[in-house]
Amino acid sequence: MLVANESLPTSTYASSRDNCTMAEITDQDLADIYAFAVQLGKDAGNLLMQAMRQRIDGTFTTNPASIDFAEKENSVDIVTKTDNEVEAFIHDAVSKRFPSHQFIGEETYSAGASREYLVDGRPTWIVDPLDGTVNFTHLFPMFCVSIAFAVNGKPVIGVINAPFMNQLFTSCKGRGAWLNETQPLPLIQNPVPPMPANAPSGCTFSCEWGKDRRDRPDGNLSRKVESFVNMACERGGRGGKGGMVHGVRSLGSATLDLAYTAMGSFDIWWEGGCWEWDVAAGFALLEEAGGLVTIANPPENYETCTIPDAHLGGRLYLAIRPAGPGPDETGREAQERTIREVWKRVRDLDYTRPGV
Amino acid sequence: MLVANESLPTSTYASSRDNCTMAEITDQDLADIYAFAVQLGKDAGNLLMQAMRQRIDGTFTTNPASIDFAEKENSVDIVTKTDNEVEAFIHDAVSKRFPSHQFIGEETYSAGASREYLVDGRPTWIVDPLDGTVNFTHLFPMFCVSIAFAVNGKPVIGVINAPFMNQLFTSCKGRGAWLNETQPLPLIQNPVPPMPANAPSGCTFSCEWGKDRRDRPDGNLSRKVESFVNMACERGGRGGKGGMVHGVRSLGSATLDLAYTAMGSFDIWWEGGCWEWDVAAGFALLEEAGGLVTIANPPENYETCTIPDAHLGGRLYLAIRPAGPGPDETGREAQERTIREVWKRVRDLDYTRPGV
Repeated sequence: MLVANESLPTSTYASSRDNCTMAEITDQDLADIYAFAVQLGKDAGNLLMQAMRQRIDGTFTTNPASIDFAEKENSVDIVTKTDNEVEAFIHDAVSKRFPSHQFIGEETYSAGASREYLVDGRPTWIVDPLDGTVNFTHLFPMFCVSIAFAVNGKPVIGVINAPFMNQLFTSCKGRGAWLNETQPLPLIQNPVPPMPANAPSGCTFSCEWGKDRRDRPDGNLSRKVESFVNMACERGGRGGKGGMVHGVRSLGSATLDLAYTAMGSFDIWWEGGCWEWDVAAGFALLEEAGGLVTIANPPENYETCTIPDAHLGGRLYLAIRPAGPGPDETGREAQERTIREVWKRVRDLDYTRPGV
Repeated sequence: MLVANESLPTSTYASSRDNCTMAEITDQDLADIYAFAVQLGKDAGNLLMQAMRQRIDGTFTTNPASIDFAEKENSVDIVTKTDNEVEAFIHDAVSKRFPSHQFIGEETYSAGASREYLVDGRPTWIVDPLDGTVNFTHLFPMFCVSIAFAVNGKPVIGVINAPFMNQLFTSCKGRGAWLNETQPLPLIQNPVPPMPANAPSGCTFSCEWGKDRRDRPDGNLSRKVESFVNMACERGGRGGKGGMVHGVRSLGSATLDLAYTAMGSFDIWWEGGCWEWDVAAGFALLEEAGGLVTIANPPENYETCTIPDAHLGGRLYLAIRPAGPGPDETGREAQERTIREVWKRVRDLDYTRPGV
């Protein structure tokens, strides 16, 4: 049996969700689920490449020049035939192999009316069949499938496949985080580089413009941009908020932003507006690599407060790469120092949802 | 003999530079130079990967956790040992094979005091040994070597190798533009997709924050950001300048921005501040794929003016992807329409240099 009480009916699961601890899944169970998830990620990646190939060859739609998508919230929030087909493929495979597991997929979820947070303690697959949909429609390589498996509300397995770049990221709690199954993450391990002494200077800063493009005074777009500019501007500029980061990067995929943070390539990722399927696999990968995730909006006492855990469905995230110790601090202390330096420079964003 | 008057002394070349036309290089000469350039790009890419591997394995410097670089203009304008070594490798190979050709490499040039534009009509190699140096130091995959060969001041061969992503871009005038030597660019060819009717909406917009981070009222940073926000904001917003682009992307490599524009993945690239070695190979690739490059700063009569050619050393560039015809316009007309829509939304940037 893969999961200790897999044979229990769903209702029993639901009523006992608070008691469903990691211990209920044996190490061997987890290994089996991991192997299944990795193969699923490879297969789904192949489907994405197949769809891309058909777009290139002109066999995908009657008019290959047209991008075949439907708008969701607005003209930059889109879903393609490929999103839906790949989600159906993954959902089907999971249902057959693990019929008792819960499943939350972006497209099924988004098609519903509720925006409630649905992840609970039960074994749950959290899936984005195609993260970076805009990139995919334009055939820009930064798209991927993102598959996470969570228990007790925490992602413990993460599989991210970006097939156009031949980059497969995988992780399982206790088994490390990997690029293409052979390269451990973060890339540099002996030792893991410390954070720059004057972070965010010297750091790569990953951020996204996102889908909320409304022109409102002090709206999300304006607050994001103000935060980006603070991070980018020279030290001493912006009333002391200038961060002079090494570089500002926007890829259009929250999932890959997190994967590159786990790799150690991005030092800081700060984002508001995405959802649990965008980040769940990335969180698993990043945690296993030694990174840290907290909340994007600065707490009132941001200079001294205990660093809160990010809520998986909180839509507001700040992630820091794995860091080694410096001369006068542990890696964790350096991550926390960096978090406070980011909070000093960013604005509150307004993203909420029911159930969180 | 590869180039008709290759045996002439350099001084003769210099005095007759205006007479040095494309016709002096035969088709077979060009094919040989192209084959040499492609192999050089592969070899240089291998050197970049080797250096990366040494960083990962901890064999590159005495302290693998430290990033081994020197600052140029400021803390985000850097050069690494790898930049210098790869440039020396390329320069050496070119000098041996084509001793009469001119050579302009980023690191040799930058080490000098002059910022004069040096490309003339003679056969000239224009090389950036490592574009995306900040990315390379952080091991973010968006770095590459960029090798261009120009005659009459125009790049006719472009080789861009991004080895961490296994992406090799190659082009030669009259021989097409290619990804990994087998996939013609743009990716979608039958037919090449038209530009969106309401461009820049529906377009991916590629731009970079760059190195000028000074906090000055109406300085380059502020003008860039104002332009980015105009492009991103909803239609009707920003006093009518809102462009509601499909996505805003920043990779930290002008060369790869251009490669992805040639691929058709980025519809629009707008940038100020980079140099001829950042763009020469990309220009060759983009032109061969059917894209268009003009100037970044909007001319006074931007709605009606003839679209000017970009100056290779002008430091201010606006590139549009290859476009197929729409119902009521040619591809070229659609590109020009898009250029005017971008000019409507962007500010003048202040980058100048002697000799341009």
